[in-house]
Amino acid sequence: MIKQKLRDRIHEIIFEADTPAGKLFDVVLLVLIILSVLTVMLESSEDWSAQYGRVFFLLEWAFTFLFTLEYLLRLYTTRKPLSYALSFYGIIDLLAILPSFLSFFFAGTQYFVVVRVIRLLRVFRIFKLGIYLSEGDQLRKAIIASRNKITVFLFTVALLVIIIGSIMYLVEGGQNDGFSSIPRAVYWAIVTLTTVGYGDITPQSDLGQFLSAMVMILGYAIIAVPTGIVTSEMVKDGRKKEVSTQVCRFCAREGHDKDARYCKYCGSLLNAENPPIA
Amino acid sequence: MIKQKLRDRIHEIIFEADTPAGKLFDVVLLVLIILSVLTVMLESSEDWSAQYGRVFFLLEWAFTFLFTLEYLLRLYTTRKPLSYALSFYGIIDLLAILPSFLSFFFAGTQYFVVVRVIRLLRVFRIFKLGIYLSEGDQLRKAIIASRNKITVFLFTVALLVIIIGSIMYLVEGGQNDGFSSIPRAVYWAIVTLTTVGYGDITPQSDLGQFLSAMVMILGYAIIAVPTGIVTSEMVKDGRKKEVSTQVCRFCAREGHDKDARYCKYCGSLLNAENPPIA
Amino acid sequence: MIKQKLRDRIHEIIFEADTPAGKLFDVVLLVLIILSVLTVMLESSEDWSAQYGRVFFLLEWAFTFLFTLEYLLRLYTTRKPLSYALSFYGIIDLLAILPSFLSFFFAGTQYFVVVRVIRLLRVFRIFKLGIYLSEGDQLRKAIIASRNKITVFLFTVALLVIIIGSIMYLVEGGQNDGFSSIPRAVYWAIVTLTTVGYGDITPQSDLGQFLSAMVMILGYAIIAVPTGIVTSEMVKDGRKKEVSTQVCRFCAREGHDKDARYCKYCGSLLNAENPPIA
Amino acid sequence: MIKQKLRDRIHEIIFEADTPAGKLFDVVLLVLIILSVLTVMLESSEDWSAQYGRVFFLLEWAFTFLFTLEYLLRLYTTRKPLSYALSFYGIIDLLAILPSFLSFFFAGTQYFVVVRVIRLLRVFRIFKLGIYLSEGDQLRKAIIASRNKITVFLFTVALLVIIIGSIMYLVEGGQNDGFSSIPRAVYWAIVTLTTVGYGDITPQSDLGQFLSAMVMILGYAIIAVPTGIVTSEMVKDGRKKEVSTQVCRFCAREGHDKDARYCKYCGSLLNAENPPIA
Repeated sequence: MIKQKLRDRIHEIIFEADTPAGKLFDVVLLVLIILSVLTVMLESSEDWSAQYGRVFFLLEWAFTFLFTLEYLLRLYTTRKPLSYALSFYGIIDLLAILPSFLSFFFAGTQYFVVVRVIRLLRVFRIFKLGIYLSEGDQLRKAIIASRNKITVFLFTVALLVIIIGSIMYLVEGGQNDGFSSIPRAVYWAIVTLTTVGYGDITPQSDLGQFLSAMVMILGYAIIAVPTGIVTSEMVKDGRKKEVSTQVCRFCAREGHDKDARYCKYCGSLLNAENPPIA
Repeated sequence: MIKQKLRDRIHEIIFEADTPAGKLFDVVLLVLIILSVLTVMLESSEDWSAQYGRVFFLLEWAFTFLFTLEYLLRLYTTRKPLSYALSFYGIIDLLAILPSFLSFFFAGTQYFVVVRVIRLLRVFRIFKLGIYLSEGDQLRKAIIASRNKITVFLFTVALLVIIIGSIMYLVEGGQNDGFSSIPRAVYWAIVTLTTVGYGDITPQSDLGQFLSAMVMILGYAIIAVPTGIVTSEMVKDGRKKEVSTQVCRFCAREGHDKDARYCKYCGSLLNAENPPIA
Repeated sequence: MIKQKLRDRIHEIIFEADTPAGKLFDVVLLVLIILSVLTVMLESSEDWSAQYGRVFFLLEWAFTFLFTLEYLLRLYTTRKPLSYALSFYGIIDLLAILPSFLSFFFAGTQYFVVVRVIRLLRVFRIFKLGIYLSEGDQLRKAIIASRNKITVFLFTVALLVIIIGSIMYLVEGGQNDGFSSIPRAVYWAIVTLTTVGYGDITPQSDLGQFLSAMVMILGYAIIAVPTGIVTSEMVKDGRKKEVSTQVCRFCAREGHDKDARYCKYCGSLLNAENPPIA
Repeated sequence: MIKQKLRDRIHEIIFEADTPAGKLFDVVLLVLIILSVLTVMLESSEDWSAQYGRVFFLLEWAFTFLFTLEYLLRLYTTRKPLSYALSFYGIIDLLAILPSFLSFFFAGTQYFVVVRVIRLLRVFRIFKLGIYLSEGDQLRKAIIASRNKITVFLFTVALLVIIIGSIMYLVEGGQNDGFSSIPRAVYWAIVTLTTVGYGDITPQSDLGQFLSAMVMILGYAIIAVPTGIVTSEMVKDGRKKEVSTQVCRFCAREGHDKDARYCKYCGSLLNAENPPIA
């Protein structure tokens, strides 16, 4: 009984965020995740690695120990260990500690080490409970609502860059190393159309520069399209929210203005506690 | 009779997409087009061409054979072969197979080969029947509705870049190879105003850098214009769609709000199956 | 009398565009202006100049002759020659021909020659009468309506780039030639914040790259501001135009919906020729 | 008494802007601030410094003298000198003069000198009283209203660039100096995603270029998000302002349409001076 109670208490701290202890746990976990990712990032730099290699090594094992402890506690306190272990966050939690152990057996494997960066995805779990949920939701909804439009747009862009790339390959291909193949010319077309413009591949001939200028002005015009899509979704969403959530007590209809006092469908008083002033 | 029936059946499969066989045909065709364009793209790369040249050659002839077969079937099954052959898609279909045959007679002609990329345009035929039609339509409508505004905008931009280019040619022309002629300076102005910023041509003098900075801030301000045009069209379009498609039975007028119960023109009940509750 | 009539007739052709002859004149003038500017642009290129220098010279004098003739005709046919000569377009018209004559006396002066590009501004006169007027007007109104907001925005950006530039000068100044003075660092800040990103000046130190990344993300966020300003003006403008221009015959009020039949202020029938159906 | 009156008079001139003298003071101060910042900027350039070093030195001390005089007057005339000295603008005013005096004692300290650029922040004090206040306020409100959305967005971008950077470090790290560590690869990811695109670090391998192209198209799509956020806030704000500021005399409620004649809450006539016409 007491053991079960302790388990439930730990479960509440680890999985929920509505107790002070639960909130503290989330903040500590957030700091640990960010610190551990910073460690991975700095460790990859040769300068830092040469100087603080030993510190990074110790820190890494400290983080791995703490995350392993947390993983085991999660497994222990949850009622359904298996379904947790196979859930999205369960797998992320495992991937957060596995690379360190694997690098123990297969020494020097750079690739495993970098996988530790996916620890960052664990941050989403913490934010799932935060105040930012609804905001993120709104953004996600606006993007989902305009999904089809974005697909059509991306498809058109894909077509465009392949055709532009092929033309530029014909125009510049012979005398310009940057346009040595169509895939490379398509890469150039994407760099140009998205206005990134590295400048690692640039047209040299007069005709090539003229065509590029056309492509840039085209990109100028069509960059407006995804913005227009997302913005109009958001404006529409904003309009919806100006309607109150009140339901008429007589005809049970919604959709009244926020400051409406009488039902616009049947004319009855909307809110008895809040009667009209006059 | 049976022959005509077979012809109609093939016509339905090839030209329409509302039967299972027709849908399957479209999917197979889509995959073939994408694979054949990928082949053209990779073949243009010297590395890939050297290694898999033989495979590409065989694949190319396989695609050409299939597309030729399709073209002949389209010609055979359609009631008006000539009007098909001279239609937009008829010409695209011919251009999709012609380059391979021409490269047989005029060996090594790189130019003919690249023309095969226009096979991609055939993809539009398939999408014409897809679910994305209405979305694409909406985008197209928003762009068409703002066509005049975009023309004025592009014209102003053209004027601007020629004047900016001429000024920069005077300022930087002497000491900077990048600004050796006005057309080149105009190319630089377009690269800068569209925020692509390759960096292949950059101002070197103090005055030139000052003027460039002004141009960039100008570009910052006017990039807002096409976005504003397209977005406001889309917002307007979105507002229109909030109106219901109901038609009044008495005065036959449309344009009622989605939650309206009574006709706003003649006052009669809009929908008998869905009477007001009170 | 006949002379005056001829003068009026020429005036109508040259200054107006509502007769067939006037329209033709505008089109011919437009083509001449574009060709003459193209000549100036190509002439500035050494390759073209070396090859077709003689042709350009002759073309230039042909254009100058025609524009001079036009200028004299304008002076002759207008009722107030002085007020025309001192008007904006009068000065532009003079500047369009002056450089050629000046280059006759002061041979080889590159600067005079380029001034001929301002001939392009004459194109605006033609478009003043075109169908694109109202569209351009709308754009201009949206920009004028948001003028104050844009001023505040540009002022804030100016402040920002000076402060960012000064910080980067401190951070990178010593070891990086690109940040050798604050004005140059401010130039870099503008290149970065506007997302142009030439790459002629880039941060080299770790701290410099970190700060640059912050500046870029800041630029990402504030590029939204001018777009938001212009777009919201355009959306507001679009909303206004959905209201009809009808005026009630009884209470003389405007602002009715496009499909309204009864005045929303006094209830009288709005349009007698177009009575309600029921 | 007279002394106090003089103090109040000076206070009015220095701190307020509603008298002619106060306005003149603000304009003079604005010009002095801009000139002094220009001096700092040009002084940092070696060319200018070598040529006009003496002029800059004298100008700098003239500005410092004037700003010191102004600071002392502010301290003297205000009723609460300490609370002014510790206020935001009090500290800025002190920081505007301190570096010059410090550079007197610690000669050659470049760092102190640049701090003088923060004099620019004093400009905000002047604008606080200007006509642009409400416009700036609107922009600020739109940004504050979308603060949470922008936080979520920036957080997602931060996550994205770390993950993209880590992947690119794995792909390009070995053979490409630009991707020598994860922080540097993250810097590249930010440069790319924000479409700045310096080109100081660019992918070299085929896989790297393919992934970069994906990142760019992703950046193309998500640059729409902050624009959408700010724009929809501004459109919402614009809609709010179409409501009149009229208050009903009977029920004291606001929020009426600009053309409303009767209170929409209690039905009484809204404006006695402006009665309905019919």
